[in-house]
Amino acid sequence: MKPRTLSSVASAQSPTENGGSSGRSGALSAPPVVLEQAVQKIDVNPPKGTRDFPPEEMRLRNWLFNNFREVSRLYGFEEVDFPVLESEALFIRKAGEEIRDQLYCFEDRGNRRVALRPELTPSLARLVIQKGKLVSLPLKWSAVGQCWRYERMTRGRRREHYQWNMDIVGVPEVTAEAELNSSIVTFFKRIGITASDVGFKVSSRKEVLRCYSISENLFGKVCIIIDKIEKIPLDEIKKDLKSVGMSEEAIEELLQVLSIKSLTKLEEVLGGAGEAVADLKQLFSLAERFGYSEWIQFDASVVRGLAYYTGIVFEGFDREGKLRAICGGGRYDHLLSTFGGDDIPACGFGFGDAVIVEEKGIIPELSVQVENIVCALDHDLQGAAAKVATLLRDKGQSVDLVLENKPLKWVFKRAARINAQRLILVEIQSGKRDLKHSLSKTEASLLFFNLFVKPKLPYRVNGI
Amino acid sequence: MKPRTLSSVASAQSPTENGGSSGRSGALSAPPVVLEQAVQKIDVNPPKGTRDFPPEEMRLRNWLFNNFREVSRLYGFEEVDFPVLESEALFIRKAGEEIRDQLYCFEDRGNRRVALRPELTPSLARLVIQKGKLVSLPLKWSAVGQCWRYERMTRGRRREHYQWNMDIVGVPEVTAEAELNSSIVTFFKRIGITASDVGFKVSSRKEVLRCYSISENLFGKVCIIIDKIEKIPLDEIKKDLKSVGMSEEAIEELLQVLSIKSLTKLEEVLGGAGEAVADLKQLFSLAERFGYSEWIQFDASVVRGLAYYTGIVFEGFDREGKLRAICGGGRYDHLLSTFGGDDIPACGFGFGDAVIVEEKGIIPELSVQVENIVCALDHDLQGAAAKVATLLRDKGQSVDLVLENKPLKWVFKRAARINAQRLILVEIQSGKRDLKHSLSKTEASLLFFNLFVKPKLPYRVNGI
Repeated sequence: MKPRTLSSVASAQSPTENGGSSGRSGALSAPPVVLEQAVQKIDVNPPKGTRDFPPEEMRLRNWLFNNFREVSRLYGFEEVDFPVLESEALFIRKAGEEIRDQLYCFEDRGNRRVALRPELTPSLARLVIQKGKLVSLPLKWSAVGQCWRYERMTRGRRREHYQWNMDIVGVPEVTAEAELNSSIVTFFKRIGITASDVGFKVSSRKEVLRCYSISENLFGKVCIIIDKIEKIPLDEIKKDLKSVGMSEEAIEELLQVLSIKSLTKLEEVLGGAGEAVADLKQLFSLAERFGYSEWIQFDASVVRGLAYYTGIVFEGFDREGKLRAICGGGRYDHLLSTFGGDDIPACGFGFGDAVIVEEKGIIPELSVQVENIVCALDHDLQGAAAKVATLLRDKGQSVDLVLENKPLKWVFKRAARINAQRLILVEIQSGKRDLKHSLSKTEASLLFFNLFVKPKLPYRVNGI
Repeated sequence: MKPRTLSSVASAQSPTENGGSSGRSGALSAPPVVLEQAVQKIDVNPPKGTRDFPPEEMRLRNWLFNNFREVSRLYGFEEVDFPVLESEALFIRKAGEEIRDQLYCFEDRGNRRVALRPELTPSLARLVIQKGKLVSLPLKWSAVGQCWRYERMTRGRRREHYQWNMDIVGVPEVTAEAELNSSIVTFFKRIGITASDVGFKVSSRKEVLRCYSISENLFGKVCIIIDKIEKIPLDEIKKDLKSVGMSEEAIEELLQVLSIKSLTKLEEVLGGAGEAVADLKQLFSLAERFGYSEWIQFDASVVRGLAYYTGIVFEGFDREGKLRAICGGGRYDHLLSTFGGDDIPACGFGFGDAVIVEEKGIIPELSVQVENIVCALDHDLQGAAAKVATLLRDKGQSVDLVLENKPLKWVFKRAARINAQRLILVEIQSGKRDLKHSLSKTEASLLFFNLFVKPKLPYRVNGI
């Protein structure tokens, strides 16, 4: 049997080969592109608002996520995750939330309304309801997940970011909020951010707003408007509050309360020991015991922009005032019932993937680090070099195996680039190679050779 | 100033509060749901074909991913990632690929055609083209990412899975394929899978098909058809090959070649020393040196179902024959030019998130493990307990802090559930608490108490 040409028998085939595909049930709406000569260059950038993570970016991301995970571990939290794609219904709440209005939603090929998650908490609530009595409370869950938003405006803002969440489900007491704040402080300290860089503003929705007996319906809306108090002009805030039905008098009084920055003053103004003041006092007392008092301060204007918070709310802020909230969270005791489940007291926070790290210039030097580089000096020794690499890897050492015949100079450069601690050259044992000759002084000083393997065939590997 | 009610001034507000939102530019197509009394329970399951990862599943996933990452480290690969959402154009290739026909694509809110990635390689190629001369070859990149597909048929198959990829870009020699196979074997060994559980079938598209001078256009299509040879009846295969323009005679000859399971036989049949036979011989020789000969075998019928492979292809298979390909990969020297870039020789593999682990029953026992549980025995000692927890966490130890006043029995149960190595009870130092009394024998034996902190107020913490 001899190879023969099929091109003749195949000549009936249309040159564009598009013909047959239109009937497929899963066919794409756009016609398949034919990959032939003179292909137009694709857009080499990731889609608008998204990122690639080449090695140098990925090292930074891993460093950050490892810190998130290590703090979660220290606090005895268990890691969880949820689908990045959820039913749209899970995120449809009161209008006015930025997060809801920028939902990255679409219709799937089966005509279901779905969304790339804008946050993790609704999925967590869904899973808690699903598990029901199977879980023993309190749950302490952490997650690091990608979240999406879609803005029509072109502001150069990203459409995706990663978020670290920690949530405590089943604890009605403010000890839970204290624990969450403590974990964020622990994270900051680990990565080298101090109390003079950032702080927490803490308040409670319970009193500051609830005391006005704002109706259930209005409550979330008012919070969402107030959340923008530092981002948009005060006149706009007033207009928005009026448009949801508040009288001018009520608005003025509310804004006055919101300007309070001291818990004592709040107590005075609100008159008497309400639940929220008591909660906040306990939080500040616990903060002292935990040892993070200097990080935390009362600020009545903090309400957070999510509809579901019910009690204490907090947000991390940049003391220089350059950044938007670094992280934020609070208590959401009634979220589960909005999904039709039984309420369980809960609180949690979300922490974005750390603009703060870039802003404060604390990005660590994370260079590639491979322990060994192994190179055969002769093509026939590739197998021997492979064996050396296997021996080292079996011992848990990382090895960059040079897979082609390359000049020594190239190998030294590569070793320097990957910060190899050891260069292993595999060659036939015959005569001495004078390495000095093939290296410039600088190159030589860049490297640290502590082992040369010069096996006879059959080679021997010494000293590894 | 006294709290007063706003509900009267707010009465103009429509009870459904839907009114104002329809004009927003980012408004959702479905009307916002009002979260009030008697809410219908949401669907508590993740969307069809997706998964939640509660703690027990997440531990397994982390264990698996850590093994993927550790193998990548041992082989000196750098980790990268790409957006899970890419432009649809990146994945539109020759029809007939399962992966292409099941693309999870949709139109975004800005009317762009996008897709949740079905695989990682096209994104890698995009990034390599983008980086251009900025990277020093060879690149050795690894990634673990979620991939998506959309099937209309309801087969109970998942729509997402995670995939581990390792790719070598810039090495034309078969040493690269040998290295990749070696890394997969290393992974199998690490998790306890042996050469009697799984193996690799290896072939090369170069000779087995190319020898027939199948035209460029037909080549990918024929490969995609042949890839289904073990999944659909032979008659269907023949029909499909005929429909793309092959004569019956050619089909018979092709199928005969594909049935060859020995490299010697192939050489005989093809007559002479072609490039592919030489490649395969080198691969088998290197496999011996790397030490994984028993894992690898020649099988001419392996061609893989992706259009872009050009040379050696391989797939991991379950020797019991229960599973579809466990992993697969090969050489794709011309993928970059199909995107309009300059070609760089490359090869890689994708490894799904391990049905094999479940199938072979090698799932490790991964239980939650928190080093300490700290509990205040009195409500007033919460602060003291918090301080104890902070001390331990500062030393790098994990602590589950009990955040409420709970009976001792509850605390012991919790300690057992989280496999705590140490239980620390914080109480006022006055008299001895007889623990035995509050514990059943079984409960007591479950726990190991090696420290009780009984501080006076101001308390002292001993022995930590």
